[in-house]
Amino acid sequence: MSATNTSVSPDLVVDLERIKRDINTLAAIGFNDADRGIYRQAFTDADMAGKHWLLHRIEENDLEPASDGAANISGVLPGKSDASRVYVGSHIDTVPCAGMLDGTLGVVIGLECLRVLKAAGLELERTIELIAFSDEEGRFGGMFGSEAFTGALTPEKLLSAKDLGQTLLTDAMLAQGLDPKRALEARRDPARIAAYLELHIEQGPVLDQNLLQVGIVEQITGLQSWSLKLMGEANHAGTTPMDYRKDALMGLADFAHEIPRILAENGGEHSRATIGQAEVQPGAPNSVPGLVVFSLDFRDPSTDTLESLSQAFQKALAAISRRRGLKFEVKVQGDIQPVPCAPHLKDVLEAEAQRLNLRYQRMLSGAAHDAQMVGRVAPMAMIFVPSRGGMSHSPAEWTAWEDIRAGANLMLGTLLKLATSPDEVSS
Amino acid sequence: MSATNTSVSPDLVVDLERIKRDINTLAAIGFNDADRGIYRQAFTDADMAGKHWLLHRIEENDLEPASDGAANISGVLPGKSDASRVYVGSHIDTVPCAGMLDGTLGVVIGLECLRVLKAAGLELERTIELIAFSDEEGRFGGMFGSEAFTGALTPEKLLSAKDLGQTLLTDAMLAQGLDPKRALEARRDPARIAAYLELHIEQGPVLDQNLLQVGIVEQITGLQSWSLKLMGEANHAGTTPMDYRKDALMGLADFAHEIPRILAENGGEHSRATIGQAEVQPGAPNSVPGLVVFSLDFRDPSTDTLESLSQAFQKALAAISRRRGLKFEVKVQGDIQPVPCAPHLKDVLEAEAQRLNLRYQRMLSGAAHDAQMVGRVAPMAMIFVPSRGGMSHSPAEWTAWEDIRAGANLMLGTLLKLATSPDEVSS
Repeated sequence: MSATNTSVSPDLVVDLERIKRDINTLAAIGFNDADRGIYRQAFTDADMAGKHWLLHRIEENDLEPASDGAANISGVLPGKSDASRVYVGSHIDTVPCAGMLDGTLGVVIGLECLRVLKAAGLELERTIELIAFSDEEGRFGGMFGSEAFTGALTPEKLLSAKDLGQTLLTDAMLAQGLDPKRALEARRDPARIAAYLELHIEQGPVLDQNLLQVGIVEQITGLQSWSLKLMGEANHAGTTPMDYRKDALMGLADFAHEIPRILAENGGEHSRATIGQAEVQPGAPNSVPGLVVFSLDFRDPSTDTLESLSQAFQKALAAISRRRGLKFEVKVQGDIQPVPCAPHLKDVLEAEAQRLNLRYQRMLSGAAHDAQMVGRVAPMAMIFVPSRGGMSHSPAEWTAWEDIRAGANLMLGTLLKLATSPDEVSS
Repeated sequence: MSATNTSVSPDLVVDLERIKRDINTLAAIGFNDADRGIYRQAFTDADMAGKHWLLHRIEENDLEPASDGAANISGVLPGKSDASRVYVGSHIDTVPCAGMLDGTLGVVIGLECLRVLKAAGLELERTIELIAFSDEEGRFGGMFGSEAFTGALTPEKLLSAKDLGQTLLTDAMLAQGLDPKRALEARRDPARIAAYLELHIEQGPVLDQNLLQVGIVEQITGLQSWSLKLMGEANHAGTTPMDYRKDALMGLADFAHEIPRILAENGGEHSRATIGQAEVQPGAPNSVPGLVVFSLDFRDPSTDTLESLSQAFQKALAAISRRRGLKFEVKVQGDIQPVPCAPHLKDVLEAEAQRLNLRYQRMLSGAAHDAQMVGRVAPMAMIFVPSRGGMSHSPAEWTAWEDIRAGANLMLGTLLKLATSPDEVSS
């Protein structure tokens, strides 16, 4: 299964200069001088410009360009047989004030792999398709393109998705000349997906700290995303005795302090919990907070652990509310199940990493990715490259070019193996 | 000194129906149907409409209407001598989404007292002046009118004051046809202020819970208002291990939890501390907070206690920052010294309360008032009436009409005593 196949063009390597050029060109699309960040949120003009740039690049390399109803951009390198396809992809939309690598790197490396394979003139058994998915980052909720691709998109979701400014996804698509209803036609038959491979920056500190070049992802953790309200009583900060208060912000402080205990008691080594957002009402320096709306994001690779954490957070919230005379409300905004990577694909990746003498480790992905959507219906695997200092979603996001080269060559060798040896993906 | 002077028209009483009518008329100016709140923030059209309504009312009651350079509105009931004046006042500007009584009640009751005294045709020794101060509530920082009145306003303050939307105070005044520079001419000679009296809702629960009709204020507490920053590192919520985080929001939670300890160790019975405002950056559910900007408001009647609290808060902040790998910043936004009420005025108030058989207590003011500004340069005293449930700065703010009548009659009797007996105020 993990037999190396060095007979087929063992000397193929990516061209790092071409990768650099593409990364730098895309980084200029949506770049903001003021904060040095990239603003290429889904279906903005910058995002569309990025999609057009990608289509042109695909075209000029004699790969077959295509765009589906969800505005996912594809480039196809045809194989000689009708066997199910090997996909390589990621996304080129960004969060606001993004760095240059998140998503983009996976697409650019996929493109480079197709260019190298095309130029080598090899006869591939399987078709390889590069795909750049729409709105991974979540202007309209996230994973829009990969949901459409896997058939998880429903008309209700499509019609109700809004951004923070209350713009409907459908209106944003119409404004870009796209027909939103066609997004429901973007589904591919999962049985025709031999494998989906995605290279992504780790977005965490593990590879960087361990001085490794690549990570082979074992599993993508599950995630619950809650929106919480603590409701107390807004009152005057000067005249309301401390003991009379129903201070919603103190309730939030209590809850924040329960997180380490709840993780220690109910979580595992890979559990994470974060309060990333908080809004205080009425929000005046001289008012006791009457309302706090905040987010809770918690993750774990085990569904059972996520359930235990969920119950513990609810209990803590109820107890804090009783103690402080508050009311509370919990809304589950997102509930993404953990998804394991396909064992046979991990084995191919590991064998390739060994052949290339890469310093690697198997690891978890704590972040959600398009691969998580695809992994629910078809075999999926991921390559991580190190994030300098663990930084991401920031202009400080970076990966050493040599690590990018290592990850790209690992992807190239793996795609080649999967596309030339149909049996590699049938296990 | 506190000899009662019942020989002069002991039967004068306020007309509650007129007070009700005025309160209700003013409550309609700036009223918002959607949230039942009043929006009469300083120098908005609604505030100016309130000022014009007040000027008309003063005029139609044959009191002398006037407006100074800070747009403070006055009505004058002349006395026969040139002795220093007795002032009665408060403000009619409001916070956003206000109730109908804060500030307004003190102005309306002052107006009613002048109407009753005018109608009684008494020959007063001292001139009594009603004054409604501009921007007490702080659209542009607060106490603008009383600062101008007492000479605390400086050109720098005048020219730099902005609201939350970054509108300059000077622009807001110009837009209303007012010449901002004239605000520096609004100062009155403190030696010519015999007394300043202000009736205000308590804005706290004490009188309501103790079933009392009025409070006689001993002292207005001092107040420090800080703007604080805790700076950590924004990172991905899924990929950043809990131990690697520099989570600014967890620092805020730590600080919030130090408040009870710091008050217990360094404060007194009347100490209060509140975090009323907090903003989290980047503020995404899947980002570890890298920055929290928040407010701290702490109050105490003793300058020494305020200083001890200040030192304790700074120490706590430094320790939390060290422990969590954060940086911190403290900016002192406001530092209002405690101001005692004039003993001889409190004695007159107490004697009048006893004469009227009112259920009263002496108490502290935990809130800042225009009286605090005036009290720095001239004798000052305050009457509180109960706030139902301690509520204020909210449409739920209320005081029973009978308590309003009690407070108004206490003000009327006190003004009469001060204006007819010059010796009452000379001690």
